[in-house]
Amino acid sequence: MQLQMDVTSLEAFLAQEFPQVAGMFAIERLGEELVVRLKVDGSHLRPGGTVSGPSMFALADVGIYLAILARIGPVALAVTTNASIDFLRKPAAGADLLAHVRMLKLGRSLAVGEALIYSEGQGAPVARASMTYAIPPKAVQPGP
Amino acid sequence: MQLQMDVTSLEAFLAQEFPQVAGMFAIERLGEELVVRLKVDGSHLRPGGTVSGPSMFALADVGIYLAILARIGPVALAVTTNASIDFLRKPAAGADLLAHVRMLKLGRSLAVGEALIYSEGQGAPVARASMTYAIPPKAVQPGP
Amino acid sequence: MQLQMDVTSLEAFLAQEFPQVAGMFAIERLGEELVVRLKVDGSHLRPGGTVSGPSMFALADVGIYLAILARIGPVALAVTTNASIDFLRKPAAGADLLAHVRMLKLGRSLAVGEALIYSEGQGAPVARASMTYAIPPKAVQPGP
Amino acid sequence: MQLQMDVTSLEAFLAQEFPQVAGMFAIERLGEELVVRLKVDGSHLRPGGTVSGPSMFALADVGIYLAILARIGPVALAVTTNASIDFLRKPAAGADLLAHVRMLKLGRSLAVGEALIYSEGQGAPVARASMTYAIPPKAVQPGP
Repeated sequence: MQLQMDVTSLEAFLAQEFPQVAGMFAIERLGEELVVRLKVDGSHLRPGGTVSGPSMFALADVGIYLAILARIGPVALAVTTNASIDFLRKPAAGADLLAHVRMLKLGRSLAVGEALIYSEGQGAPVARASMTYAIPPKAVQPGP
Repeated sequence: MQLQMDVTSLEAFLAQEFPQVAGMFAIERLGEELVVRLKVDGSHLRPGGTVSGPSMFALADVGIYLAILARIGPVALAVTTNASIDFLRKPAAGADLLAHVRMLKLGRSLAVGEALIYSEGQGAPVARASMTYAIPPKAVQPGP
Repeated sequence: MQLQMDVTSLEAFLAQEFPQVAGMFAIERLGEELVVRLKVDGSHLRPGGTVSGPSMFALADVGIYLAILARIGPVALAVTTNASIDFLRKPAAGADLLAHVRMLKLGRSLAVGEALIYSEGQGAPVARASMTYAIPPKAVQPGP
Repeated sequence: MQLQMDVTSLEAFLAQEFPQVAGMFAIERLGEELVVRLKVDGSHLRPGGTVSGPSMFALADVGIYLAILARIGPVALAVTTNASIDFLRKPAAGADLLAHVRMLKLGRSLAVGEALIYSEGQGAPVARASMTYAIPPKAVQPGP
């Protein structure tokens, strides 16, 4: 599906709508697959230096949300209705996380995406997440 | 199953092992069902005053983790392997969240628990979560 | 929520719309909670006499579907969009399964229900399932 | 990871351990990715000619199970502990289903795999499933 937003407009939208978390994330690549980085800092860590589950949840959530927006334009009201996550391995200490996102369905009212999360520089994924979003009817707005 | 820890020792364990988040949570009730409160503040909110998805994930995760510890004793190494969440309704603005947790399975290597999350004072749940934890062999330690 | 259908009309609807499987199921109780029985026979079994995963999936799916229909009337077009299942214990050999179903959300376009599945006569659940259904707009039809 | 079983030995194992369902499935390809076919017949269909949810669940379950066995050898006692499925689109009427399976984790006690299910000849997936299996300690047996 053709993209309606580019990296600059996606990051601007994130900064405007989610100012509390926007600084934690950076879009690395945007195309059929979207890659988002979580800039890991002390607030994301658990004892032993591992990244917390909620931080990985947040990364997958933001990544799939951005992949939807890239395709339908800036819709602040899309909401997550379901999430399923498998935690596969302990993230590497001191490494950022990268979520590789692809869309599986983009219907009129429901969108489903999937993310594989990696510790930067590692070959095996640390988590897998799939999430469903409800897209409000006629919610498409002009971009920021 | 008989409880091995009480509210005081669970909260002490949380404060020791997860100092970054322990202050956000309080155990309201401990028995067959465990009830945990998320003291909602600005860091948990999204635009519109709704509590973020990652905050609800964190609440369910902490609640089920505590329900497991209450039954097997303080095991810092139990790890979440799978989580499934349904987001059902928008949380009420300005209200704390309460997770009502019950254990569905407590095996030697896997434990499964479930949480229903409510905005305080509301009758209909805002989210439902089920999570699986891997319990390390012989990881039981003396309490704090 | 008030019920729109009773046991007789639900079973008649099932027999009409799903003739291949209707005979496997029986509604035991209908109210705030709905209880459905899977009449276990050889076609549901795996080696060792345990009921197969797909059979438990089918039981949860039918149970939650019927709980939705009971509330909104006969809508043949409601479709399952997401399912999450935890298999907790081995079902008892030779026993029917009973799914205890409750609805968590019944919105205009999405419904979410949950089922706990028991081997008849056992106290601990063998499986837990939550499922989401998309409800088509204006799909409500007169009952059979 | 190196494969311990080939297509012939996997199909022989399936026929021996799961005689009731083995005839429905055929392995199309075995490598990093495993592709399994569900030979759709009347027993899998719902009104309108669509393949039932439980049939898709069974296909994903068998596919991931075979992908595990291919890597660890014939272990009849591996059991599914968790499954999450998204139903994305209506399967094409009259077409077989193909599950494309890959393993995400193969630990000593837990294995996690994922399946994308397609109607044969269609480009967009009809379902996505991820499943976790508990692998019993020392359960590896000589092949059939």
